[in-house]
Formats: sequence, C-alpha cells, structure tokens
Amino acid sequence: MCEAGSALGLSVRVFAESADDSAAQIASDVELGAADSFEDLERFATGCDVVTGGHELVDLKQLERLASAGHSLRPSPAVIALTLNRRRQRRELKALGLPIPAYRTIDELSELLEFAEQHGWPLVAKAVRGGHDGRGVWVVESPVDAETLLGETKATGVELLVERFVEIERELAVQVARRPNGEVVAYPVVETVQIDGICREVVAPAELSPELTAAARAIGLTIAERCDVVGTLTVELFESDGELLINELVAGPHVAGHYSIEGCLTSQFENHLRAVLDWPLGSAALVAPAVATANVIGSVAPPPTDARERALAVPGAHVHLYGKSYRQGRKLGHVTALGGSRDEALEKVRVAAGILSGELAMENQ
Amino acid sequence: MCEAGSALGLSVRVFAESADDSAAQIASDVELGAADSFEDLERFATGCDVVTGGHELVDLKQLERLASAGHSLRPSPAVIALTLNRRRQRRELKALGLPIPAYRTIDELSELLEFAEQHGWPLVAKAVRGGHDGRGVWVVESPVDAETLLGETKATGVELLVERFVEIERELAVQVARRPNGEVVAYPVVETVQIDGICREVVAPAELSPELTAAARAIGLTIAERCDVVGTLTVELFESDGELLINELVAGPHVAGHYSIEGCLTSQFENHLRAVLDWPLGSAALVAPAVATANVIGSVAPPPTDARERALAVPGAHVHLYGKSYRQGRKLGHVTALGGSRDEALEKVRVAAGILSGELAMENQ
Repeated sequence: MCEAGSALGLSVRVFAESADDSAAQIASDVELGAADSFEDLERFATGCDVVTGGHELVDLKQLERLASAGHSLRPSPAVIALTLNRRRQRRELKALGLPIPAYRTIDELSELLEFAEQHGWPLVAKAVRGGHDGRGVWVVESPVDAETLLGETKATGVELLVERFVEIERELAVQVARRPNGEVVAYPVVETVQIDGICREVVAPAELSPELTAAARAIGLTIAERCDVVGTLTVELFESDGELLINELVAGPHVAGHYSIEGCLTSQFENHLRAVLDWPLGSAALVAPAVATANVIGSVAPPPTDARERALAVPGAHVHLYGKSYRQGRKLGHVTALGGSRDEALEKVRVAAGILSGELAMENQ
Repeated sequence: MCEAGSALGLSVRVFAESADDSAAQIASDVELGAADSFEDLERFATGCDVVTGGHELVDLKQLERLASAGHSLRPSPAVIALTLNRRRQRRELKALGLPIPAYRTIDELSELLEFAEQHGWPLVAKAVRGGHDGRGVWVVESPVDAETLLGETKATGVELLVERFVEIERELAVQVARRPNGEVVAYPVVETVQIDGICREVVAPAELSPELTAAARAIGLTIAERCDVVGTLTVELFESDGELLINELVAGPHVAGHYSIEGCLTSQFENHLRAVLDWPLGSAALVAPAVATANVIGSVAPPPTDARERALAVPGAHVHLYGKSYRQGRKLGHVTALGGSRDEALEKVRVAAGILSGELAMENQ
C-alpha cells in the first residue's frame, strides 16, 4: 500500500508495533505502538483523513472506540468483525442466502456429536475468532478427537463452531473493491493453492465455467453491497461437487491479490486506497492471458546469500521481498509472472520462488 | 526508485536538499544536505553499498572526490561527465563514429560566424554545462543575435558550442540499462514530444522503420558498452531527413522512460537499481501494443481541488503525482495508459493529464 500510495501522491502514515515491521522499514511516517492500546491507536489516527489496514490480529474493541471517537475507519469495525468472527460471519452469509457449508456453533461435546450424526465424520472445527493461515482450524475424525479438542479449547477459552467436512476440488478466491458511494469493481476469479493452510500459489484467471465465474463474482458483489464493505474484500471459496461454498472473508489487501500488482490494470493495493478515499476505482482487468504468483515461504534451511540475484535471473519473474529475515514457514515475499498460458506463468514463479525460499537449493544438494 | 527498491526488498537511503523534496517525502531513510557539500555527500554515502542518482545539477567535482574516497558510484563520474558536459560528450560521440549534428566549440564571435558561413543560419548555441529541460539552448538567427548571446554568456561565464540547426521531423529516445558485468537490455524506441524544451508526451513504441529502430538501438548499445555505462542511459534522438542524430545523453532514470512502470515487464527504475547492484536485468518488453505517457505540467492556473479524483475516473489512466505543490511550468506528475493503439493510449493520458495540470479546467470555463 505504501508503494501504491506513493504513486498517487498520498501522504501515508504507518502504524507498526516495531521499526522492523515490513511497512515500517519503507514508510517515511511511522507511528510505533501496540495494536491493543487505544492511546497508541488514537495518537496514530489523529491527523489521518482515513484509517485503514489489513491484519488478522487487530483489536476490534479498540477499533470500535476509535470509530466512536470520530475517526474515519474504512472498512468499518462492523465489516472487520464480519471477517474476524466466524459465528457472526456465518450467520450473516446464511441470512443473505449465500452458499456456506452446513455449520453450527457449539458449547458442549453433545452438540458436536449431534452435528456429526447429521453430517457424518470427519467434521471441521473452527475457532470463532483468531483463525488465519490455517490456525484455528481442526479436522475432527472421531468422538475421541472431539473430546480431546474440546478439552483443550475450553481450557484456553476458545469458542468453536463446527462445519461439515467439504471435499475440496479446488480453492478459488474472488476479490472486490467498493467505495462508500457504492461503486464497485470485481477482480478476476483466481485459483489458489494452500499447503498447511498457507497460500502458496495463485493463478489468474481460474479455469472455470462461465456459470461458476458469474456465481463467484455475484457472491463477492453481494457481500460487498449488502454488508457495506469499503475497500477490498476477498472471498475465499471452495469448489466442491461443481458448486461454490464460501470458506473465509478477508477485508483489505490479501495474499490472493498480490498478482494484481503486475497482473491487473489497477492493483488491489491501489484500488483499496482509492476505495477508502472514496475516489473512482480503476479497472481490474488482467494485462496478460494468465498471471501466476508463488509465495516465498521460508524452507527448512535459509536461502543462499545470492538467492535474490538468482531469482531475478528467471526471465519475467517479478520479485517482491518484504524485508523479513528468514524463518522456517515465514512468508518472506512473493514472485509474479505474466504468461501466454497458466503453465508458462506458473513455471516461472515456481522456479524463482523456489530459489528465494531455499527449496530449490535443497533439491540441488 | 524508492517504489522499485521497496519491492526488491532493498534498503534505500535518499539524499535530499529539503524534507519537501519528492523522494524525501516517501523514503524512510533520508539524509538532508547540500549537493555541493562533500561532507554532506560523504555522510550520506557512508554505509551505502552503491550510490546512484539522476540529477542535472549534481556537482561533478564532489562526485569525483567521493569516488576517489572509495565510495561505489554507479554510473561513474566519467559517465556523468559525459552527460553533463556537452563538449566532452560531442567529442566522445564523434570519436565513436556516432551520428551527431555538425558542431564546434567557440570562444569568440568570429568562430561562431565562421561556423555559420559553413552551415548557414539559423544555428543552435548550447551551454557546454548546465542545460536541461530546454535551458542552455538558444536558436541564433543572425550575427546580431549571436553578438547579443555572446555578450550575455561571456558576462555570466557560460561556455558555448554551436551546432547546425536540424530540421526535426520527430524526437525519439532509446533507453538502455547495463550492469558492470556487461549485460545490457534495450527498451523500445519511443517517440517524445517536447514543448518549450520540456517533455510533454511519450509514446511507445515509436512508429519507425525496422532499419531506424535497429539504428537507434545500436546507438544506445554502442554508447553503453564503449563508455562503460552502468545503470540506465537515455539517448535523445532527432529524426531528420530519414536519419537519426543524437541530441542528448541522460544517465539514470529519465522522463522518457516513465511509461515503463506500467508499460514494460521491468520498469526503468527497477532495471536501474538491478544494474547498479550488478544484478541480472529484467526484460524491457512492452506489455501492450502501445503505451503513452503525458506529463503533468503546471498550467497558468492551479488545478481544481478534485483534479486527482477526476483524473482517476479516466478509464485506464495510471496517475503518478510527485507530491509537489502547483507552480506554472512545474512537472507535477505524469499519467500512463496502455492501449490497443497509440491513439487510444494517447487520448486517455491527454485527458487525465489535462485535468491534473489544470489545462482542461481552463478550457471548460
């Protein structure tokens, strides 16, 4: 967002917990503070025309206080709550008649077992709050599993809901950007590949029937309009039995839209900024027949010191690094490539991201 | 360059004379100082792996001292001298057998008159040092003109050279990026439109015969290789009588290459950084059949306060603003658009840049 804001001539102020945070490394105006401190947040927000962001660990209560104090939060705390609280989200999506897996919130083991009787084993248990990147999600295979999980979550105060286990053919995502005046654009439906709950690859456009493409876009647009979303919203979808089911909602720029920096006429970051400022949105059309992004996830060993140079030698690889030091499993950056075909674009980003993550060095040893 | 550096995960330090300078507004690490102060420059350079930049008013002596003190300057002071000193540049280009207008350096009126006798009136007088954006260039129509000019330049200590007046059919530019190990890429030849010596529009690719396209690229590559250029180099060309003549050389990112941010697989800014770091260069291929850029030059009156929003409403317009306050004739930003044709791209950027500069508001009054 800093890079997009710079091009638009915006004055961007960043709130960060540490000067080492990625955005704090590159921004000119950084306010350090704790995300759960109202005083810190208010000091940051004072003087900002609009406060926005995208973080799974935000403190909703403090954001609500900030909005009550008159600061312009976009999206609103209500929209953020919808993305952070799975119970609230499921209820809302169901009310809108949108496709979600069968679910119920549970307090007791008996309720879980009752749900399993109706929908069969395995089932999926999810934390009502605090889940992202595969955290807070458990596949529960049996009553014994369920008892163990409930023992743990009750001890730690984690509220749960359970869902029917969905046989996932593919994971898809659709992204929309909406401004307060109602103007909205939808990005192409993309295919995403997750490993251990972490997004590894994104390919745009998804190879999808016109019907399912239209259905995915309609889901994104419906949520944006009916829930008064401002900024970008990503709807993560499962394709199962030829149908779409909503998996998660994420407010603000999202890993499934990083491809748009080079891949679309207007990136998700620029359109998010334009949307929260209530400025006209830009076209979300692709600039090539296919675009792929591979995320750089720290491998079992650090990448070689010349990994960046070697990755840049991959023709057409757009390298993005976040200024983070190596740690196994950490998102260190991403690589995007345009292509005449999905395979052509994917091949490039896999090689470059493999070099940057240290994975390819391992294979060559 | 800050935006490109951020994506590459670079730690960018900016040297600026004032905290209001465009780059200083967005960079996280800014060293303020005077461009002619060796102490300031050395304080800035200490801790940098590579020092680079692009500014017509740099103090060459201080850069040479900096290089002598062991700092890595890319391009080297010798290359910068070639771009800043027209006498040195003309001599070098002539020695390389490259096409330049007939010229001679002059100290006395008699030498100018002698040159005019050989090549006819009018002729073009140019300051040996310090010319850019049309400054330091005079069309001399007659002996009287010449006497007046020489009186002025002698009084202010400006050294001159004179050139044959070239009937310009079109102005073109070719840009190359070269790294120390010799790897080099050439960007498409572009057509540029100047008004009052200031670049107003750039269209890529230029509509040019394969022969002239090859000739333009060969000129860029020859200079890059033979003069040991590192980073990007822009060669401004005149097309005259079906031939190409070199007008100016500019080191570092240049206004004729701003279109490459959205228009090429790798922008001039990214390839400049990759080149000065001796990293593999990226493809300079266009991502669309045509790309146009229009510069936003402050019009006779300030633009309306909602100019930015109105410009963003032009479909496909990529708006770049430099964080500069309005002043008549000042470069405030630029707009780029991709198109299926040159006209389509030009139409978009003219409208958006006209709104941003305040020109279109004037016309509508």
